[in-house]
Amino acid sequence: MKLKAVLIDENQDLYVDYVEDLCPKENELLVKVKATAINRADLLQRKGNYPPPAGESTILGLEMSGVVEKVGSNVIEWKEGDRVYALLAGGGYAEEVVIPADMAMKLPDTMSFEQAAAIPEAFLTAYLNLVELGGLTSGEHALIHAAASGVGTAAIQIARELGATSIVTAGSLEKLNRCLSLGANYAINYKEENFAEKVQEITNNSGVDLILDFIGASYWEANIESIGLDGRWVFVGSLGGREVSSMNLGPFLQKRLHFIGSTLRSRTNPYKIALTRKFEAFAKEKFIQGTLTPVIDRVYDWHNVMEAHSYMDRNLNIGKIVLKID
Amino acid sequence: MKLKAVLIDENQDLYVDYVEDLCPKENELLVKVKATAINRADLLQRKGNYPPPAGESTILGLEMSGVVEKVGSNVIEWKEGDRVYALLAGGGYAEEVVIPADMAMKLPDTMSFEQAAAIPEAFLTAYLNLVELGGLTSGEHALIHAAASGVGTAAIQIARELGATSIVTAGSLEKLNRCLSLGANYAINYKEENFAEKVQEITNNSGVDLILDFIGASYWEANIESIGLDGRWVFVGSLGGREVSSMNLGPFLQKRLHFIGSTLRSRTNPYKIALTRKFEAFAKEKFIQGTLTPVIDRVYDWHNVMEAHSYMDRNLNIGKIVLKID
Repeated sequence: MKLKAVLIDENQDLYVDYVEDLCPKENELLVKVKATAINRADLLQRKGNYPPPAGESTILGLEMSGVVEKVGSNVIEWKEGDRVYALLAGGGYAEEVVIPADMAMKLPDTMSFEQAAAIPEAFLTAYLNLVELGGLTSGEHALIHAAASGVGTAAIQIARELGATSIVTAGSLEKLNRCLSLGANYAINYKEENFAEKVQEITNNSGVDLILDFIGASYWEANIESIGLDGRWVFVGSLGGREVSSMNLGPFLQKRLHFIGSTLRSRTNPYKIALTRKFEAFAKEKFIQGTLTPVIDRVYDWHNVMEAHSYMDRNLNIGKIVLKID
Repeated sequence: MKLKAVLIDENQDLYVDYVEDLCPKENELLVKVKATAINRADLLQRKGNYPPPAGESTILGLEMSGVVEKVGSNVIEWKEGDRVYALLAGGGYAEEVVIPADMAMKLPDTMSFEQAAAIPEAFLTAYLNLVELGGLTSGEHALIHAAASGVGTAAIQIARELGATSIVTAGSLEKLNRCLSLGANYAINYKEENFAEKVQEITNNSGVDLILDFIGASYWEANIESIGLDGRWVFVGSLGGREVSSMNLGPFLQKRLHFIGSTLRSRTNPYKIALTRKFEAFAKEKFIQGTLTPVIDRVYDWHNVMEAHSYMDRNLNIGKIVLKID
């Protein structure tokens, strides 16, 4: 064994040690990982609350950038030395990872490995939920919660590129200002203001066309008030709990609402590949031109991975926390 | 005034009397109504609980068949004497009605006015919710509640034509047998069996891909148990109440559920016209060949409209209750 990866000890602490070597199958790539990034799912998985999908690596890490080291026998699109980045079902916190060749995206020459590693989860999640499931279009209003998160900062930029108006919530002035600088049209401090009231003001009582909801139960009523006719409410996380006490179904009929539960990780590889291809068609030029840009809060050496996790745990980050693999 | 229509007296009883004459605008048709049909919305509207959309006729009646009497100056597709049927925003319980010309469908020669009047609300609602919103496809399982209703009997047939497997619920043996004869694959008496358990048996614990839900609150938990991964749960009525006490959001994430509130009446005319055109393309030949057929429980003379309403109120009908306008 000569491959190192981040492992989890019995105290749910992280350490770097040797693991089994990897070998790509015929349609796969072996990639030397240069950077990965931290997701909230990693924290849950570390604590035993979010097992990886069956058959996937038990090593943490849902995204990475790196250099192709070996290509499977059927792969013709990629060659040794190509700079790639991709969404992963797991295994990113390691020196090497194996991925389906069709899942890889090419790094623009101008983009660093750290930048690229900050893209897949945040941008594919935002793209899936705003565009594929939410059908957000030009002229519509989107309400984006937890807007300073990795996904939030990606969603603000995608909404802007679609020509939609974004109304975002976050919990500090610094976070709100950063959201505005990324193109958010309205920013609401949820600790100081009633966002449902502000949304009604901003939309002339029409409500928003789309909600990107990482919160769940604690925002239930305020989201019902905020959403408008034919609104799509994409529910992607439950930072505010999962138990809604007393729900009235009336607004779902009156407003013809679509409430859509969405996760990316549990989807099949063919789905993720199709999504990656659509996203790349949408985003590739925009990354090169800089109209889309990954928002990175800080970069940690991967030996300091515990520190990086604890930083996310304290909700301090604006955008992504990246791990550099040496 | 020489036009008669059904009106509502102060006791919420119905009677026939004279009303203002109608005149078609340039893109409209004046139709001499031959038959209309009863919908649950009519009963609510009669009791003051379901006001018609702004600007629409206050006369009851959401569908009709009849003969074109006059065409607006811009209309070229239709001429006097054409046999047509259509969805209405209101006004069907009358000797004449005015409709947008684009909303009219042509009666097949083999179809009676009574049959045609039983189609629009039931079949367009079923088509909207199963096909347009629900995306039901061949090989999938659909759970259809209130399956002996007008919409239910239409939904069973549409599911069958799509190649989907239908599991239906109703409250009597007679209703269940009729559903099976229309092509339902499995029929469950909700008074005698736990439908969620039966659904798990039938689907090998995969759950259904689509629920057509007229019930709401009282079936909430059982529907959550019955639906499978990526399931579409189309919520079209709340016969079982609107207040869900304690909802857990977990299954919406775990199963990636789409919960879709849907009403047809409140939609715009352009939407209804587009839906009518898509439905006609799907259904026209099937009505001629008899693979789709409106299910009619009984036909009343329109002077006996109160009797017809009370019959629906008692939940006795299998399929549609039609009013013949003489």
